[in-house]
Amino acid sequence: MLHLHSTTDPSRWLTHVRQHLDELLIDHAHCERKAASTAMSLMNSYVEDRELCDEMQRIVIEELEHYAQVLALLDRRAIAFRRLKPGPYGRELNRLVRPAEPHRAIDRLLVAGLIEARSCERFDLLRHHVDDSELAEFYGSLFESEARHHTTYVRLAEHFQTRDAVRERLRELASAEAGIIAVGSPLPRMHS
Amino acid sequence: MLHLHSTTDPSRWLTHVRQHLDELLIDHAHCERKAASTAMSLMNSYVEDRELCDEMQRIVIEELEHYAQVLALLDRRAIAFRRLKPGPYGRELNRLVRPAEPHRAIDRLLVAGLIEARSCERFDLLRHHVDDSELAEFYGSLFESEARHHTTYVRLAEHFQTRDAVRERLRELASAEAGIIAVGSPLPRMHS
Repeated sequence: MLHLHSTTDPSRWLTHVRQHLDELLIDHAHCERKAASTAMSLMNSYVEDRELCDEMQRIVIEELEHYAQVLALLDRRAIAFRRLKPGPYGRELNRLVRPAEPHRAIDRLLVAGLIEARSCERFDLLRHHVDDSELAEFYGSLFESEARHHTTYVRLAEHFQTRDAVRERLRELASAEAGIIAVGSPLPRMHS
Repeated sequence: MLHLHSTTDPSRWLTHVRQHLDELLIDHAHCERKAASTAMSLMNSYVEDRELCDEMQRIVIEELEHYAQVLALLDRRAIAFRRLKPGPYGRELNRLVRPAEPHRAIDRLLVAGLIEARSCERFDLLRHHVDDSELAEFYGSLFESEARHHTTYVRLAEHFQTRDAVRERLRELASAEAGIIAVGSPLPRMHS
């Protein structure tokens, strides 16, 4: 359903981020803000695609509500929010976006969709394996909306090319995404 | 209260836009989208300023809700939403933003605040002088939030320099804004 070409190795990623849950939460707040920003930017680029704009409008609002929820959680735990050095994940994925339309639109949507899919997979791991019931419940509550956003992004890409062409490109990008995840990053991040 | 250095000449602007209310409404939807985008971009630039980010998060959501309201209104009137050639107002104002921090932050916030102030003034004219009770009521309902956003932007600018320095820069920018409005634009726009 999520079109991911790899499954996170819990013994590596989970073991790592569990030792840095505070930093992971800060990264999570940034992820929600960046997800809102990506949706806003797609809305600005394709102003005449009404369904796309309607969906992006809803996604921006949802992501910003999640962002506020993560910040409230940080506050309750007295964790100071701060700027973080980003991992390479987003940058490397965005490098795969082809410059000319309609490919650019398709790739931006599919990359956004794959990031949602990976978040979704990671939230699922966190909700089942983090010994902190507040956090586990919180990740459970976000799981469903990330999966829904993934589906929305993939469907919207079909506004720009045939379903088959989009599916083929999705396979290519998902394979590249799995490669980026396999290389990983030493920073404890939602997408490390 | 709104710090504007000029009052719109109703005989010129109102007379013009009243003959193009459909196009004005389409422009209005774009204005709400652009206002959301500006707030999102300020949030991305100053991620560690918590009050700024909290306020921008709220403003993005409010502007996108207004955007959806304008689109619903266009739908009810069977007016097709479309891309519009922008007037020179936003571009000319953004040209005044000084490049180096902290001036850049102050100018971006004050320019955003002045745009809200001018929208507010224009909504007030529309609600009192448009012979269309649905539109008049709609502009009345938006008036208060634009005024509030103006105040928020001006207050946030004081995070970056003293109140006196911010007020002085606000006077300079408001004077430039009045100059841009005086020149005007032949396109029927919210800020023409």
